[in-house]
Amino acid sequence: MSEEEAESMLLELKEKAELMVDLAYSSILYDNKEIAKEVYELEDYIDNLHYELQKLAIEDSKKGELETDEALAIIRLGSCSEMIADAAREIADVELRDVDLHPVIKDSLLESEEVILKVKVEENSILKDKKLGEIELATETGMWVIAIKRGKKWVYGADKNTVIKSGDILFVKGPKEGAEHFMQLAEGKSKEL
Amino acid sequence: MSEEEAESMLLELKEKAELMVDLAYSSILYDNKEIAKEVYELEDYIDNLHYELQKLAIEDSKKGELETDEALAIIRLGSCSEMIADAAREIADVELRDVDLHPVIKDSLLESEEVILKVKVEENSILKDKKLGEIELATETGMWVIAIKRGKKWVYGADKNTVIKSGDILFVKGPKEGAEHFMQLAEGKSKEL
Repeated sequence: MSEEEAESMLLELKEKAELMVDLAYSSILYDNKEIAKEVYELEDYIDNLHYELQKLAIEDSKKGELETDEALAIIRLGSCSEMIADAAREIADVELRDVDLHPVIKDSLLESEEVILKVKVEENSILKDKKLGEIELATETGMWVIAIKRGKKWVYGADKNTVIKSGDILFVKGPKEGAEHFMQLAEGKSKEL
Repeated sequence: MSEEEAESMLLELKEKAELMVDLAYSSILYDNKEIAKEVYELEDYIDNLHYELQKLAIEDSKKGELETDEALAIIRLGSCSEMIADAAREIADVELRDVDLHPVIKDSLLESEEVILKVKVEENSILKDKKLGEIELATETGMWVIAIKRGKKWVYGADKNTVIKSGDILFVKGPKEGAEHFMQLAEGKSKEL
């Protein structure tokens, strides 16, 4: 395998699986079945990626490019991400069942020191048309963009070159004490980063 | 069940499971078997907590305090955290096997936009003797304390009242671009938050 390829596959599996967990809990927090369904979509994607990684590891092991133990470690780590993705799908499944969840569940999520917010970027927000790298959102506010819903499309793996647009629905994760400031920025009520 | 009790058990299960994943990957990143063993310890703790939560949910369902569906949702969410904790233990297990891991594995972790750092707080660090709430570490630097190793003891669930001490080994998580600044603060090389 090209080492870059294996590296990026392993990383993508890890990050997508963790993202799925965050989105799955968001679906419960916001009682939002659309988010829960997106978790299902991601699970299919991860299944496929996982399979490709396993194949690569074994083929390269055959070619002598990887020791047996090395190939096995890569396969095992990929499987761990798959396990986490499965757990995320189960969480989403709790939301998708047509029952009202006991308030205890939502309250336990709200009590966390680390929160996930779902916020729409308004027309007069200073975040609008800015690159994530330019505003240094994560270091300035403590909040981390985990996903963007743009129209019908989901954007994952936002990096410093990702431009925030008016109307974007941002899913961000961070400390409770950073949440209020971030909401005000997105909603155009505060102009100071 | 007291609702507060169920809430805090669900939250603790969720947070500890996610912490375990972070620690497990740290054990690989720093090739540190001690961290990997701590993940094993946490898994035992989680197993027990999970069992207590399941018992509570069923007992309260019998008493009529929870609908069947509600009890089931609580049990299912607890099981999801257990699944994530199991995945974390598997990750730690990859580290605990006595093989050298292929560089691809460590490199994939280092390429992430979100990094986990393990940093020792030096005697002349401005973080020393400060409460986490006082310095607003997460909102000021983007870095989030996920665990503290203090002597032989591990401290989890640090909150705004947790005091950082000289000699603490902090495990923090956050954006790559916040890492350098944070390291300098902990190592006493920068005094400005």
